[in-house]
Order: sequence, then C-alpha cells, then structure tokens
Amino acid sequence: MIFASDNWAGASQPVIDAMIRHNTGTAPAYGTDPLTERVTARFREIFEPHVPVLFTATGTGANVLSMAGCARPAGLVMTSGTAHILCDEWGAAEFHTNGMKLVSVATRHGKIAAGDLAAEIEKHPEGSRFGVPVALSLTQASECGTVYTPAEVAALSAAAKARGMVSHMDGARFANALVHLGCTPAEMTWKAGIDILSFGATKNGCWCAEAMVVFNPDCVRDLATLRARAGHLFSKSRFVAAQFDGYFGDGHWLDLARHANAMARRLADGLAAAGNKLAYPVEANEVFPLLDPATIARLRAAGAAFYEWPEAGRDENRVAVRLVTSFATPEADVDRFVEIAGG
Amino acid sequence: MIFASDNWAGASQPVIDAMIRHNTGTAPAYGTDPLTERVTARFREIFEPHVPVLFTATGTGANVLSMAGCARPAGLVMTSGTAHILCDEWGAAEFHTNGMKLVSVATRHGKIAAGDLAAEIEKHPEGSRFGVPVALSLTQASECGTVYTPAEVAALSAAAKARGMVSHMDGARFANALVHLGCTPAEMTWKAGIDILSFGATKNGCWCAEAMVVFNPDCVRDLATLRARAGHLFSKSRFVAAQFDGYFGDGHWLDLARHANAMARRLADGLAAAGNKLAYPVEANEVFPLLDPATIARLRAAGAAFYEWPEAGRDENRVAVRLVTSFATPEADVDRFVEIAGG
Amino acid sequence: MIFASDNWAGASQPVIDAMIRHNTGTAPAYGTDPLTERVTARFREIFEPHVPVLFTATGTGANVLSMAGCARPAGLVMTSGTAHILCDEWGAAEFHTNGMKLVSVATRHGKIAAGDLAAEIEKHPEGSRFGVPVALSLTQASECGTVYTPAEVAALSAAAKARGMVSHMDGARFANALVHLGCTPAEMTWKAGIDILSFGATKNGCWCAEAMVVFNPDCVRDLATLRARAGHLFSKSRFVAAQFDGYFGDGHWLDLARHANAMARRLADGLAAAGNKLAYPVEANEVFPLLDPATIARLRAAGAAFYEWPEAGRDENRVAVRLVTSFATPEADVDRFVEIAGG
Amino acid sequence: MIFASDNWAGASQPVIDAMIRHNTGTAPAYGTDPLTERVTARFREIFEPHVPVLFTATGTGANVLSMAGCARPAGLVMTSGTAHILCDEWGAAEFHTNGMKLVSVATRHGKIAAGDLAAEIEKHPEGSRFGVPVALSLTQASECGTVYTPAEVAALSAAAKARGMVSHMDGARFANALVHLGCTPAEMTWKAGIDILSFGATKNGCWCAEAMVVFNPDCVRDLATLRARAGHLFSKSRFVAAQFDGYFGDGHWLDLARHANAMARRLADGLAAAGNKLAYPVEANEVFPLLDPATIARLRAAGAAFYEWPEAGRDENRVAVRLVTSFATPEADVDRFVEIAGG
Repeated sequence: MIFASDNWAGASQPVIDAMIRHNTGTAPAYGTDPLTERVTARFREIFEPHVPVLFTATGTGANVLSMAGCARPAGLVMTSGTAHILCDEWGAAEFHTNGMKLVSVATRHGKIAAGDLAAEIEKHPEGSRFGVPVALSLTQASECGTVYTPAEVAALSAAAKARGMVSHMDGARFANALVHLGCTPAEMTWKAGIDILSFGATKNGCWCAEAMVVFNPDCVRDLATLRARAGHLFSKSRFVAAQFDGYFGDGHWLDLARHANAMARRLADGLAAAGNKLAYPVEANEVFPLLDPATIARLRAAGAAFYEWPEAGRDENRVAVRLVTSFATPEADVDRFVEIAGG
Repeated sequence: MIFASDNWAGASQPVIDAMIRHNTGTAPAYGTDPLTERVTARFREIFEPHVPVLFTATGTGANVLSMAGCARPAGLVMTSGTAHILCDEWGAAEFHTNGMKLVSVATRHGKIAAGDLAAEIEKHPEGSRFGVPVALSLTQASECGTVYTPAEVAALSAAAKARGMVSHMDGARFANALVHLGCTPAEMTWKAGIDILSFGATKNGCWCAEAMVVFNPDCVRDLATLRARAGHLFSKSRFVAAQFDGYFGDGHWLDLARHANAMARRLADGLAAAGNKLAYPVEANEVFPLLDPATIARLRAAGAAFYEWPEAGRDENRVAVRLVTSFATPEADVDRFVEIAGG
Repeated sequence: MIFASDNWAGASQPVIDAMIRHNTGTAPAYGTDPLTERVTARFREIFEPHVPVLFTATGTGANVLSMAGCARPAGLVMTSGTAHILCDEWGAAEFHTNGMKLVSVATRHGKIAAGDLAAEIEKHPEGSRFGVPVALSLTQASECGTVYTPAEVAALSAAAKARGMVSHMDGARFANALVHLGCTPAEMTWKAGIDILSFGATKNGCWCAEAMVVFNPDCVRDLATLRARAGHLFSKSRFVAAQFDGYFGDGHWLDLARHANAMARRLADGLAAAGNKLAYPVEANEVFPLLDPATIARLRAAGAAFYEWPEAGRDENRVAVRLVTSFATPEADVDRFVEIAGG
Repeated sequence: MIFASDNWAGASQPVIDAMIRHNTGTAPAYGTDPLTERVTARFREIFEPHVPVLFTATGTGANVLSMAGCARPAGLVMTSGTAHILCDEWGAAEFHTNGMKLVSVATRHGKIAAGDLAAEIEKHPEGSRFGVPVALSLTQASECGTVYTPAEVAALSAAAKARGMVSHMDGARFANALVHLGCTPAEMTWKAGIDILSFGATKNGCWCAEAMVVFNPDCVRDLATLRARAGHLFSKSRFVAAQFDGYFGDGHWLDLARHANAMARRLADGLAAAGNKLAYPVEANEVFPLLDPATIARLRAAGAAFYEWPEAGRDENRVAVRLVTSFATPEADVDRFVEIAGG
C-alpha cells in the first residue's frame, strides 16, 4: 500500500523493453543520435507544431532551465504557494536564474485564478524595486491534484502576456491532467498560450525521462547551452529517447495515466463513502483525505506509506494526508486501504 | 569501426540486467531506497574508508558540483589546458562556482607535473587580485589517454595542499586508469591525497552512472544541497544504483576497462608497426596517431568514425586523430582499421 | 517642504569640511591609507570591541554583501515584509547570495516579534526542500519608523541563533534609532546578539558613507574579497574615511539624528493635534499620517514632496503618506506642512 | 615621489569646488536629480550622439556591469593578458556575468592586434563546448601605458563584430589616451565601433566618478537594473554628477590628463637619457623602466613609491618597475626621481 509518491514506482515494462531494444550498437553522443531525432519528431506529432525538445535529467532541471532561459535581473516568477518549483526544489530556480524571486499568488485548491494573477502583477509596475514580472509558472496537474481547464490556462497566459511575461507549465503530471481533460496536448498547452513546458514522464512510468518542450521560439535562444552548462545533457541521450519511445508507443503513456487516475478516483470514492472529508477535488492521481490519528496509526501499522499534509487541512481531530497513486498501484491496495480506513 | 568516443557505446549486458532485476515494486525516492544504500556500501568496500557517495546525472555534474562544494570568491581552479572541465563543459564550472577562474597549467602528454603546479600556485600569492588558488582538478586517465601514477598524484596533491587547496580527480575514465596501474582504488585516490573524486561509469558500460565520492569530510558540507539545487538528484535514484550494482558485480567494471584498454593497445601496436607516429603514450583507451589526409579519407570511406585532433599534433603532411576504444569495441574493428590505415 | 526621503538631503557641512581637509597629498589606494585606518579605529571605539569595518559604496552593498558572506545553497533569509533588502533592492540579495530566498515574517508596525520569527523558522526543518534558515535581517530603525529595543533585538537574535542563523542589522537609519533609545551602539548591536551590521551614514548627513561592521569573526572570512568582487572597494577610499571622520567628530552624527527625530516628532504632534491618525508610532525620523485627497492635493500644490504609502493604511476617505525628515529639515517647513494639512 | 598609482592622488580643486557648490538644498535620489540630468547632457555633447550614461561606484563596477549587460551562458570575453578586468578585479567579471570565461589574447606592448583577435575567435566556432565569443574588452590607455589608435580600435571592433561580439572599452585612463591621440571622444569610441565604454574620471582627478557610456542601444536593455542590483546606484547621485560637472568644466579634464602625460614623458626622457631601457613606448601616463636593484633601493630610500613589475621585463641585472604619473604629480618629483635614478 504505497501512496507516498508516484515516484516510488519503478518503470513500466514497455519502457524497460524499449531501453533494452535500443541498447544495440553505437550511436553519436549528446543527443545527436537517430533515436533522439526520431523521438523528437514524435513529440512534434503529439504537440502538432514544430517544437524544439530538450531532454533534461530531472523535472527540477526542466523547470529551472525553462526559467533560466527567460531570466532577467530583478525578475519575478509568479507561481502558486504550493508550487514544486517554489517549495520543493532547494532554491534551484533562484540559483539558475541568478536570483529571480518566486512570488506566490493566492490559490484555490492549488490553482491560481487569472484575476488574482493580474492583481499580483499589478503590484509590480515597471520600475518597481521589488522586481519585474518575467514569468508565470503553472503546475498541471497542480500539487493539490486538481487540473486547470484549457480555458483557465488561456486566461492565465493572457494575464501574463499582457505584461510581456513568459507562460510556463510544469507538467510533472502532464499525462494525468491530459486524460482527465480529454483534450489534446496542443489544446492544453500552446493553444492556451503556454510558451514552454516541462514534460514529465518519470512519475508516470519512466525511470528518468523529462523534457523541455518549447512552443515559443523566443524561449529557445540559449536553452541548449543553459542545459549543457547545468550538466543536464546526457552523453548517452538515446536511453532517454528510448524511454520516451516506449512511453509514447501505442498510447501507452495515456493508459498508464488513466490507471493512476482511476485508482485515485476509486480511493476517493471509497474514502468519501466512509464519511471522510477530502480537502480538494480529485481530478488526477492525488487524494487528500482528512484522517484522525487512530486511522492514520492503523493504516501505518498495516504497512501503508503516505505523508501527513497539514497544509491541506487540519481540524481539532483530523489532519489531511496525501495519497498518490501511480501507473503501478494495484487495485487491491486501494481497496485494502479504504477498508482499513473505513475501520 | 566507431572510435569517435567511448560514450557512443550502449550499456553492457550485466548493467542492463541489473536495471531489469531491480525494477520491481516500489522504493523510496531521492536516493533513500535500500538499493542506493547497498550500492553506497559497495563503494565503501571498493574505496576502503567510510565515504559519502552522491550520484549525479552526468560527469559534468560530478565535476562542477565538486568544485561548487569548495568554491570561494575570486577562487582559482588549477587544471590542464586540455581538461574536460575547462574545455568541454560549456562553462559549467564557472557557473556553478559563481565565477571561479579555471587556470591552465603546463602539461606534458596531458599530465601536469608537480613542479609546474607549484610554480603556477606561486604566481597567485595571498591577496592577489587575479584570484586565490582553491582547487586542483586532475583528469585520470587524462584527456590524452595517459595515466598519473599514484606517486605523481601524491606529489600534485601535496603541492595543492601546501596552499590549502582541494585536490579533485575527474575519473571519467577511472577504471581505464585503474587497470593500467594495477593498484587499488584507494591507492589511486585518497591514499595519494585526493579529496574528492568524480567517479565515472557511463563511458565504461553504464548508460548514466556517475558519482561524487568524497574522501575529505571538509568537502561534503553543502554537497547534497548543491546537487539537489543543480537538479541532479534523481527521484528514481535506484536505477542509477542498479547500474552500479551490475557494474561492480564480479569485477565486471574492471573486465570492461581491460577490454577497452587492450583494444587501444592493439590499435596502437598495429598503427605503430605500420610506421605511424603516436602523439602520446598509450596507457588507457585512447590512441592519437598522426595520419595523412589520404589515409583519413580512406578510413572514413570505409565507415570509420573518429575526430581529427590537431591540438595533439600536426605536421605538414599529417594531423593527429583521436581514437577511443570502449568496452564494446570489437577486435575485428580494430584489425580492420589497422589494415586500412596500413594502406 | 521636502519629506520624500532623507536621501534627498545633501551632506552636512562638517562632513564636507572633512572631505576638503583630507584632500591633500597622496595616499595608498583601496583602503590601505592611514585615514581609513584611523577611522576604523574610531569605529572600534564607538562599538567597543575589536571589529573589522569594511566600507561599501551603498547601503544595498552593505546589506547584500553581509548576506553573501554567510550564504549557503538553498538558504533562507528571514526578514520583514517591508524590509528594504526584500522590497527595494532590485533582487540584489538574491543575486549576491547566488539565489537565497528572502522570506517575510509577520510584523507589527514594521517590527518582527521573536515568537513569529521562531514560528517561521520552525516551518523549515533541517532537510526542507523549500530551504534552510541561514540569516535574520532586521532593519533598525524599521521601514515604518519604529525602533527595536535592545531587549527585542536580543530576543530575535536568540531565536535566530537557536537555529545557527546569522543575525544581521540593516542600520540605514542607525543613528536615528540610537538617539531614540539613548543606549550605546554596543548595546544596540553585538551585546544584543547582532553578528554583522550595515552602518549607514548617507541618509544622516554624508553623501556616500556606508560600512559593514563585523562583530562575529565567523562572518568576516571572505567578506573583503566579496566586497572587492562586487566592485565596492573604492580606490580613493580615504574620501569615505574622511566623511566618517567628519561625521563622528564631536558627536556630530548624533546631533544630526537628534534634529531629524525632533522634526519628525514635531510633525507628528502637529498632525495628531489637528486630528490626523498616524499609522505607526513615531520613534525615529518617519511619520505616516492618513490624509484625505483634498489635503494631499493642497500640500502638493504648496510644494510639499512626499510619497503616498497605501501599504501603511488606507480607508475609504484617506490614505497613508510617508513623511521622512532629515538632518537638514528646516523647522519652518515642518510648521508650514502642519499648518497646510490642518487647513 | 609617489609613482605607485594615479589613484593615490586626491581630487582636483575644481572637482572639490563643484561638490561644495552643488551641496545645497535637496534633490531627488537615485539619479533622478536635475544635476545628474544636466551632466548626462554634457556627456552627450562630448560624445556627440544621444547616449545613455550610467554612473557606477567604481571602474570595476563599470567594466563588469558592461559585461553583465551582454552576458550569455558559456560566453567568452576576449581581452589582453594584462587587462585589469582579468588580472585585478577579483573575479568580478566572472561573477557578474554568471561565469563567462575571460580569454587572454596575445598582445604586443599591452595592445591586442586585430589579426590575433580574429585568430582567437576562430578557435571557438559556433557550438564549441569551451565557450562562445561574446565580447571584446580593450583597455584604453592600455595597462602598459600604450594607446590604441582609432584605426586600431576600428580593426579590433570589426573583428569582434564579424562574430556578433560586443566591443567594450575600459577607459579607466580615457583622458590620458585622448589627449595623446588628439582626436575626439567620438572618434576614439563609437566611430571606431565601440559599443559600450567604461568612462573613468577617478584616476584623473575625481574622487569617485565612473560611468558606463552606452553607444549601442542593444547594450542598454537591462543595464540600469543590473547596476541597481549590484548596489552601484548611489542615492545621492548628484555628488557624482557634481564631480563630473567640475571635471568637464572648461576642458579641465583634458588639462589634468595633459599634465599627467607630460610628467610621464619627462620621466621617460630623463630615464632614457640616463641610459635606462624602457619596456614599452610611453604614450600616456605610465613608464616602465628596467632598473637594477641598487637603483631601486636608492629610490626607495629617498621615499619614492612604486611597484616592481617583472612581467614587463626582467634580465639578469634589472627588473622593470611601473611608474604612474597623475594630474597631481609635481614636476620636481619627476626631476628628483630622474636624478636619483641617474645615480
């Protein structure tokens, strides 16, 4: 019963198979091999326009290099107060941008509203000594397991662009959001004004496959050099390409995400049916029920792994916990968790 | 006939097997899993003392984070004029150290002599406005395919330490150097005064397995945070651990390096027998023969991949080329190359 | 009627006289001249212990180099939400510390309470991926014109030190705070746990005289190099020394601050007597009355210069304005301002 | 007999007079005062076109912020091996550019030749992992006391521009070079392809008056913010403006430089007449004679201050020394020095 994080899972079989399949012969290094090229073409099919794709070692790398690519002195990055780039990346964005500030905008259920973004931007007029708005970074699906609709993304991007800001999407759980919305990757990104995307596949069945997908040519200028300078250019890049090859094959990536989301839904429904309040709507692969200490203890005793998440909610008797499902979550684990929690 | 680089090879079968073997169930993320712990213990057996081991995404990451860990304002890193950290890492060391200067010391066959290092250090006394010597970075095996003896490493480290400098080894081809010397990993590193090592396994049969091995506790203080901030902490760290597990098993890593070195030796002997001059002694897995344009054209026409390397040597008729062998180089390719070159 | 800022004033006559007096003959450059040495000794008399003193070009320089001297990766600087270092320095602290985050702690009247600081520190335990508390930065007098008592400074420093943090004081208005408290410089700083001080004299009658005064030897290690690397080491350093020489002579600096504070008190009393509410207690040389638009317009029409300061207070009829007095503020200007405002 | 540096001098009387003259009343801070505006207009008259002018605290500040304004990842700055920005600024350029490399080009008498620059640029083609040429930085007058002709500057700028590089002039001794050439400021700068200039007045009679003069609008984009972020924006900016006001008045700046140059010429002629070899031609205010130890000792005993400069020349009996004259050097000191040296 592992619900600690989707990154506790291994790699999916097709992903591993692809790595084995492509481990033959030699290939040019540093991303100049034919497989990297082929996979990049596949990205372009998925996202429709001609887009540069740059693999990175980690999602943090993709996020902060995206920001580095548009960095300006005294720049501000607007993001939610729960954003991974702000809360969970050891100051990487601040470092790689040579000291831009990350400013947290008010959120509801982990999502920023366009009006609140516009109000925050307003606070920092041209010439402000606090800083100058440079980028917006949205997380899709959000850290609260909620999903921005394309219309919401578009409204936020519009507010950002009205001030000349870059609109970035942290897609660590891109596939989970996508299958929830049922729209196309293009509709969820560049058609809604996204300039640059951190496309994450690691949490959804790869072992390490992350990429920056650049929709706005203005964002690409020094990006390859920034990536190399950060030590994020793999010599044997084809192994990342291989993972993506397996990941995208036959819609495998969407199947993986559908499973993870279905498990979250099943978990949410079971817990709600047993009378547990949920802190946030369940739209992707995360569930935040409020549980009492006895239930938490009982679940832990039974071997369940998860984190308490008091920032999501807490009352005198109960505290929120975060449950993350993955492509590899067995249905039986979900049912057993619900049963014990129902207690 | 691929002699362009050892990083054009794929991964060795035992390394791949280990990745498959360990892709079961879930495991805690960010390097807190049992396999990472087990592999770290294995590193300690190999290097004898109790050493912190931190995986990184790339060799560049290991090199420049090692330098970041000891960075000081106006600091100087002494290195050879052919060092990878200086010539081939897109200014990563300068960036991650917030602007330390890399100073190239005179070399012979890619190796720095202790006397030349001492003379260079002397040029920068306390209070120099050019900068203050902070670290020495040696490449073992060197970029010219030569190998420092433990005594040479010790003399260089002593010269560095006389000024309070950190002694770093870039071990991108650590195993190739080790099997050439026939000494222990400890003798080649901390027993010879090395404080911190970039341990590379990617070029020698892994797909991405690099680590910082820290012998001097003074070098470890903020290293884990620096790595995380650089985006070099894998969530599914166990897959790097798995590669090392396969790599170290049954001395597999040494076998791989012995093969690569033997192929380089065979190549060198064959080329020398045919009257070709070699720019440097062949001690690891690189050979730098001087070839004439007709020979180069003939080899390329036959499908050989390699780079011209004029900095290694050039006369009116011939130019040096760099030939790198790997764990995967077939003996037949070597023989065919020699035959064609022999003309 | 200039109340826009104390940095709109020029230099006091004794300060100018000292500059002229010391402009004779030649002197060694970069702060190695006898006058710099003599003035440093004077600093030591003022602060009692043996302290390194490093002049900087600006108060921003002193603040951010103080932070750079203790910077660590993923470090956090705790400060108030109105702090100059956070709000008014163009991201200088973030840049010079290679990306530390500035975290704003709740305040009352511009002052942080020790309990709130401790609570904020608590949120970032060892290993937090948001960041690690590294320093506290207090502004004395605060940006709201209030003054920390030595006991309050001591409580805050104690909370910081309990976590190993450096305690920094931004003393841009040091003298104004000092004469308000009537204590010694030592009691307001190192005796209350301050490790490093930005000592500002520019706003109080110099034209450019700022210094870092280092009480804790741990904070001094690379500070001189950091200052030089920032371009803040004057070649003709003696002219800064000369200003301090004039500033400190015969208690001149305290006289200047007493005048500025008295003018603020007179302004506050006059405005309050006329029924205007003040947003904050008046303890140094700043007054924040709430004024209605008609009054503001009347004052501006009469030539008064000041800024609206809505963050200090606003209701449906009135908005706060910031009035700053200086050593050079004429009493007549104060009285005329009050008269017009009373209008 | 002070020949240690021109920055050992104080400020000239007209410069001081201007500071006193402008120390009346209040003025807006941070460079928005009328005097700063007036002086900026004066700069424009001097340099002819409409140019942004940004004061900085030091020459180092002007140099490294000029480089920061055009910084790119993995960027290279080409400069001479004796350049102040490389040798004497504590790694400031590397820091403020987030790690650009400074590459030294071969020089003759401290001056780079266009052919050598082109050859160095050639070594770093697009895609080089060593780095990408971004800027050229020339020192005028050079650190060896020689002066580039406008034709030489133009040839160098052309070589830089052929690769899209920014052409920067470090004019710490701008006036000394200008009066030597007898050309206009425009001819020595933008008409010869200079994009951005560090205009130094400190060494030539101000106490602290340095500015970036921006000829190429592409270089100005974030420059004001970079300056502020570096802590180089003075609140009481008018005092720098005042110095420039005095400096430029009635051609005072050119008179000061002419005196310094004449003293250097007199020194050179006297030393040469006495049979002393000079390491470099004397074109500005620096003289590098080779002296024997006995002469050096005799001069020091007589109170002469100067530095030995072995990098300028050394043979078995003699070593070069650097003698710098200034606006304030008395003719009598020159004559006495020559007399003692003559032995």
